[in-house]
Amino acid sequence: MENRPSQIPSTPSARLRLMVITDRGVCANLPDAVAAALRGGARAVQLREKDMGALELLELARRLRRLTREHSASLIVNDRIDVALAADADGAHLGWRSLPVGVARRLLGPDRLIGVSTHSPSEAARAQEQGADYVTFGPVFDTPSKRGLVATQGVEGLAECVRAVDLPVVAVGGVLPEHVASLRDAGAIGVAVIRGVLASPRPEEAARAYLAAWDDAP
Amino acid sequence: MENRPSQIPSTPSARLRLMVITDRGVCANLPDAVAAALRGGARAVQLREKDMGALELLELARRLRRLTREHSASLIVNDRIDVALAADADGAHLGWRSLPVGVARRLLGPDRLIGVSTHSPSEAARAQEQGADYVTFGPVFDTPSKRGLVATQGVEGLAECVRAVDLPVVAVGGVLPEHVASLRDAGAIGVAVIRGVLASPRPEEAARAYLAAWDDAP
Repeated sequence: MENRPSQIPSTPSARLRLMVITDRGVCANLPDAVAAALRGGARAVQLREKDMGALELLELARRLRRLTREHSASLIVNDRIDVALAADADGAHLGWRSLPVGVARRLLGPDRLIGVSTHSPSEAARAQEQGADYVTFGPVFDTPSKRGLVATQGVEGLAECVRAVDLPVVAVGGVLPEHVASLRDAGAIGVAVIRGVLASPRPEEAARAYLAAWDDAP
Repeated sequence: MENRPSQIPSTPSARLRLMVITDRGVCANLPDAVAAALRGGARAVQLREKDMGALELLELARRLRRLTREHSASLIVNDRIDVALAADADGAHLGWRSLPVGVARRLLGPDRLIGVSTHSPSEAARAQEQGADYVTFGPVFDTPSKRGLVATQGVEGLAECVRAVDLPVVAVGGVLPEHVASLRDAGAIGVAVIRGVLASPRPEEAARAYLAAWDDAP
């Protein structure tokens, strides 16, 4: 086995070990739940609230910016590059309805992260060509977030994606702590979760469980 | 009566004489309808398609950018400052859910226009304080776009708004060509319309009718 990462990673890639994607609909108080996840060791937060107006999103982004800074964690804003810039986020995450990577890069500059949601190895390869810094790949497992929208890719699909690109690949979609070892073995740099952390009654312990599974897996 | 503006205005304020606000739901082909409105003399187009993803919006913005350039007309993008920048629009128009004017200014720079939708003289005064370049004010008349959401302001409300600010005030909401003289007399710099132009079977003639009403009014 390779060198074991510390449980509190600090390099940009290592921060992607556990990305918490927000959905304020699954928890009572989103900033509180995110703060707990950060205490539990999460070092990347993707703000993704598609039905929020820009003003409300900016206010939430600024709150999460303060929290993530306290924990040296990355804040990534989904889709809205203007909000990412306004909140001084560390980057933006792009979906299929978002601006192209090249346009995002021009607006965000060379130093901010650009992540892209991908659902096939060829999509991931295209994101790499276009200049993405990382991709998420999924849904690896069945998840209510994507049910009926995109085919479940499985661990084999993930492994194929990892082989197709040189970028860090973050596994997403129905990921539980017990999946982590297989995802790591398939070459994922980390996992992204919504409900697994934020819908937990104890987001801090939930985050810790994902990270411990990563470090402890044989 | 003051000096009569030419029917094809060219200064930034004069371009606001007739702002066509888009709604692709009211016409068969939006770029065609906008092109016709530009041929009819409109010199400001506000791209406002709230349910469009950023990628689709950018593609449409780029099309309208080419059309507006051909007619030396301004292109203003509603809400999405990232799309405004990506399409090299002349500015952005902000509603109540949009980023604050100060944030928008920082992202857009000093030269691009920032417009703000206002519904009372005090909102208009606040937009001016925050650094807006122009405001729209309305709904001056009853309109299906805002029915049940905001009180109709009337021509008197418009006149009050004009007195409250030094900014150009564009009247919006149910405006027909026969209203134009009273709006001009109340101090509006121009009118903004959706259906009045785009839902017309002849958008070119419709645009021409608004501009002629402005010039011909006693």
